[in-house]
Formats: sequence, structure tokens, C-alpha cells
Amino acid sequence: MTKISEISEFDLIARLEAVLEQNVTPNTKSKIQVAIGDDAAVIGNLGNLQVVTTDAMVDKVHFVSNEVDMRNLGWKSLAVNYSDIASMGCEPVYSVVTLGLRADILVEQLENLYLGFSDLLNTYGGELVGGDIVKSDTFFISITVVGSTDKPETMKRKTAVPGDVIAVTGALGCSNAGLRLLLNGELKKSSHFYEAHYLPKPRIPEGISLLDMGIKTGMDISDGFLNDLKKICVASSVNATINIDSIPVHEELKLSFPDNFKEMAVSGGEDYELLITGHESLIKYISDSTKMDLHIVGEIEIGSGHVNAVDNSGTQISITTGGWDHFTEN
Amino acid sequence: MTKISEISEFDLIARLEAVLEQNVTPNTKSKIQVAIGDDAAVIGNLGNLQVVTTDAMVDKVHFVSNEVDMRNLGWKSLAVNYSDIASMGCEPVYSVVTLGLRADILVEQLENLYLGFSDLLNTYGGELVGGDIVKSDTFFISITVVGSTDKPETMKRKTAVPGDVIAVTGALGCSNAGLRLLLNGELKKSSHFYEAHYLPKPRIPEGISLLDMGIKTGMDISDGFLNDLKKICVASSVNATINIDSIPVHEELKLSFPDNFKEMAVSGGEDYELLITGHESLIKYISDSTKMDLHIVGEIEIGSGHVNAVDNSGTQISITTGGWDHFTEN
Repeated sequence: MTKISEISEFDLIARLEAVLEQNVTPNTKSKIQVAIGDDAAVIGNLGNLQVVTTDAMVDKVHFVSNEVDMRNLGWKSLAVNYSDIASMGCEPVYSVVTLGLRADILVEQLENLYLGFSDLLNTYGGELVGGDIVKSDTFFISITVVGSTDKPETMKRKTAVPGDVIAVTGALGCSNAGLRLLLNGELKKSSHFYEAHYLPKPRIPEGISLLDMGIKTGMDISDGFLNDLKKICVASSVNATINIDSIPVHEELKLSFPDNFKEMAVSGGEDYELLITGHESLIKYISDSTKMDLHIVGEIEIGSGHVNAVDNSGTQISITTGGWDHFTEN
Repeated sequence: MTKISEISEFDLIARLEAVLEQNVTPNTKSKIQVAIGDDAAVIGNLGNLQVVTTDAMVDKVHFVSNEVDMRNLGWKSLAVNYSDIASMGCEPVYSVVTLGLRADILVEQLENLYLGFSDLLNTYGGELVGGDIVKSDTFFISITVVGSTDKPETMKRKTAVPGDVIAVTGALGCSNAGLRLLLNGELKKSSHFYEAHYLPKPRIPEGISLLDMGIKTGMDISDGFLNDLKKICVASSVNATINIDSIPVHEELKLSFPDNFKEMAVSGGEDYELLITGHESLIKYISDSTKMDLHIVGEIEIGSGHVNAVDNSGTQISITTGGWDHFTEN
């Protein structure tokens, strides 16, 4: 017998996936193109694709219910799902929300949560069409979002090829700065880092444009740039080398964290920028011809799933990624 | 300020819905046909409808994790969602599962949970395409299922009209018998009541046939026959009169609960049979021409959302419905 705290999240998912593979009779009429293993599952026929993603936020794990602004929580819990839709190059169509509620939660708190949902829906489109409310000793919010595209393929993780460059859609590390300040009791409301941590902007229009203009490989940066880049490398069976000095970083991050900003940018997590790969000429063309702020930060090489980092002088850099993993106790 | 335990679940949902209505800019291109207020939301265009439903099961509320057979829990947590798809007359297409996990849960328990999912997928079709795993002090399973139909409309709650008869697809009350025996420590494994409680059969093929043959009004019985019939009456702005002696009841329920079986059948809950309304001639035709075991139990009348019960002698019956409500503390 194995406690889930004794294996990695990756291994846990692999074992559960194996149960389905070994026990479920394959559906010969399946329309599922990508199931477990990307930001979202892809369903449908050529030219009419649907993607689905689900993400939950749990009290005392992802937020503290007595302290969090519920309107921010509504925004963020829906935004992290929208970010997965953005990473596939799709537009959000509809969402369902399940709330697990303690009996002492206030109706007004939940109304504020729904105001946060409303803010996000008004900004990025899509509709909240239903959900479920259940009693729970632990307050949680579980959201599923369905998106769509009329393109023949979505962006994916597994399509990076040697020769591609790696780019990101914006500065990294500021959400992590917000978290660090929050934990020290120093996060000022409405500051840049507060907004970065609580009100991330899912890159919906950017994702749609990138797919439209021919980018095939993309994901969103939720677990930290290096961790997420490694997922692309593993899915595509390639290596990546990044130049840590080319990672875009906000001036305020450099000023506030002069000794740590590079590490925070590559391993902080919850940036919700898009991480893409593609021909350098295409990425430069998109950057020049749209308002998108694409930053080339490295390149894809022949390999088997490794990420290397160098600095401007070409020196190899060793970075602790923070080893994001949900359950392993260390 | 109002604690959620101080208002009904119905009122809570109404207040949250009002936040969206008052704050979200309406989407003029919306494809949403039915949002909050039916068993599932309906999305799409004529002839290509999609339905979505979400339902969560929570430790110490819907099951006890140290006692439950995880394979049964896998079956049931997916089956209750499939039942909502059945109630719309649709077939299940894909599902996503979010698990909220305590660190001490065993991998083997989760593999058994996935075996339960596999059993259901093999029986009723559809595919499990992804999900999310999060840490939580309370173990929970949140599932979203998307279904579809090529019919121009799904079954709904709001289409019952005076003159319709009311029918159910099978015997009621046995799941409640299983629960009662379980709570008394008397539930025998693999007994009829055990199966009824732990392994409910979502009426997927029946729902598809009913819609196909012209039934417009349907829902699944999850909260008890009378409670659920009242939802149809409210949604359709009609009254209903049922004959309690015509409710189908399993022989074993009569034998085991001779004093309570009628009350258990009409208010027990978790039956997951379908409750439909339609012209008597159509329902009799379907019953005669298919293998479906439809039982006519009452009729729809002019009114405004009330349910009346009589017995074979025509005497008015007063039944405590058990007042199913998630949060109200009484």
C-alpha cells in the first residue's frame, strides 16, 4: 500500500490513467483527440474542436478563506481555467462551478465570489451556465470550462521541434513576489504585485491570435517557467536551452527583489503568461505585426526532455525550480 | 450578513444567479438554451445540442471514506452525473474528474475508485478525458459530464402541461432502504438494497429512447420523488396529483419495511429513475412497444407548483417529504 504523499503527482496520475487504459473498452467512434496530458482535453472533428479543462481551488491550500477578498478569489479561480483554454488557442464558451461550502460561510461572501466571476466573464467572454452546491468541511471551488476553435488543430504541448525558439508573452515572477509579500504580511492592496498575484490575466486574445497565425506549441505558465517548459520538452521528446538573462522581468521586481528576481521569474509560478515555441521568423513576425509583447528566451534542441539554462556569458546555470509537486512531503 | 445555513439552497442559488444577471453583460451570440435551473445546461444549435452537468461527492457528507468501497464510490459519483444526462434524453460523451485529496489517502484506494469509473464507462459509454488533482483537508470528488443529442430539443423540466400523466421508469425507495440499513449496520454486501444504494443505474438508454419517441418533460429522481416532482411543477407552473398506491415498489421493500415503504418510495431519494410527463397514449405506446417498465403514477393539472397525493380510495394523503435541503439547520 502506498500513501499518495509517497509518490509524485506525475506518478499518481500515471497510475490512475493506467487503470482506465487497462479496464475501459476503447471507443471506436471516439472523438477525443487529446485526453489526459495537456492543459485541456480536445474533442471533436476537424474544423470544429472543443477543449475542456478543470481546476479546483481549496481553502488552506490555494487561499485562506478568512483572509482572501472573495471577489479576487472568484476572478482567480475562473482565470486559471481560462488560462488553460488560452494555452490551447481557444475561446471560452461556457463554465460550470461546483462550490463545496461550510455552513458558516456568508451568502454575501459568495455573492462577492460571483462578482469576481462576473468581472472575468465581462472581460474575456464565455458564460457561466450552471453548477452544483454541496456541503463540505473544507471550502472549495471546482470549475470546468469548455472552449472551442474553428481551426483544425489546437495549440499543444507535444509539437515542439528542434530549431524552434521559445517565447513568452510577458514578464514573469510578479505573482510569486505577491505571494512572498503576502506571506510576510507586506502585500499592499492594489499594488502591482497584488494585482499580479490575485488578478492574473488569462491570455485569451493572445492565445487565439497565436494559433491563428500558425503557432502550434503552447502552454500556460502555472507551475513556474522551468517546470512548465520541462513539460513541453517531455511531451515533445526534445531538450530546451534558455538564456536566463533574456527572461522578461518587470522593473519593480528587480527593484524589490534584487537578489532573487531571476529565480523568481523562472520558478515562481502562477504567471499565467503563455509559453510557446515556433520558427524564429514566425515569432518575430507575430511580435512585429501585432500588439503582442513576445520575448524569445531560448531554443528547442534534439534531446529527451531536459531543460538547460545559461546566462548571457554562456555559463551553465543551476537553478532550484522549487520542485512544485502537490503531495510529496519534502 | 446571512450565513448560508440560514437560507434555503434554492434561495442561495437564486441570490448567486442574480449576481450574474445583474453584472454580466449579456452575450448576444449566446448558444446557451438552458442555464441554471434544470438537471443540465443546454448549449448549441438546432440539431446539435450539448448538455453539461456537474455533481460533487464529499467525505462525511455523501460517504465516509474509511468505510466506503472505493470502487462503488467511483461508480456512484459518475453515475449520479450520468443520471442528469439521462434525464435530458442525451448520451454521455466525455467527463472530467477533479479529486481533492488528503495526503494519507492510498494510491490503491484511488485505483479502485478509477475501477469504478471504468465499470460505468464500459456499461454506459462516454470517455473520461482529464481532470485535476488538488490537496484538500476534506476528500472530495467533483465530476463534470458533457452529453449530446442530435434531436432539436432535450427533455426539460419546464414543459409539463395540464392533461399530461406522470410516469416513472422503475421501483422507488430501495436506495433509501440501503441507506437506512447502512446507518443501522445491517446492510448486507451485494444484497438488493446494497446494489440500489451503491450502484444506481443511470437510465441512459431509457432517456435516449424517451426523447426519441417524443417525451418532452423529464428529470431524474435524486432528491426524492415528491421533491423532484415539485421541481417539475414549479418549472412548468402546473400542479400534480399522484396516487401513492400506484408508485412502483419492489417486493423486498414491502417485506423489509412494511410500515414505511410508501413514504420511503416517495421521499427516499437517490433512486435515479426517470420521472417524466406526457400524453397518456404516448406513454402507454412507449411502454407497450419497448422493454421499458413505465409506471403511470399521477397527472398534471392546472395550478402553480403544488403536488397533491391521494390513495386508491381518493383520500388526501399528507406526507413528510423529508424536506431535503443542503444547508438549512433543522
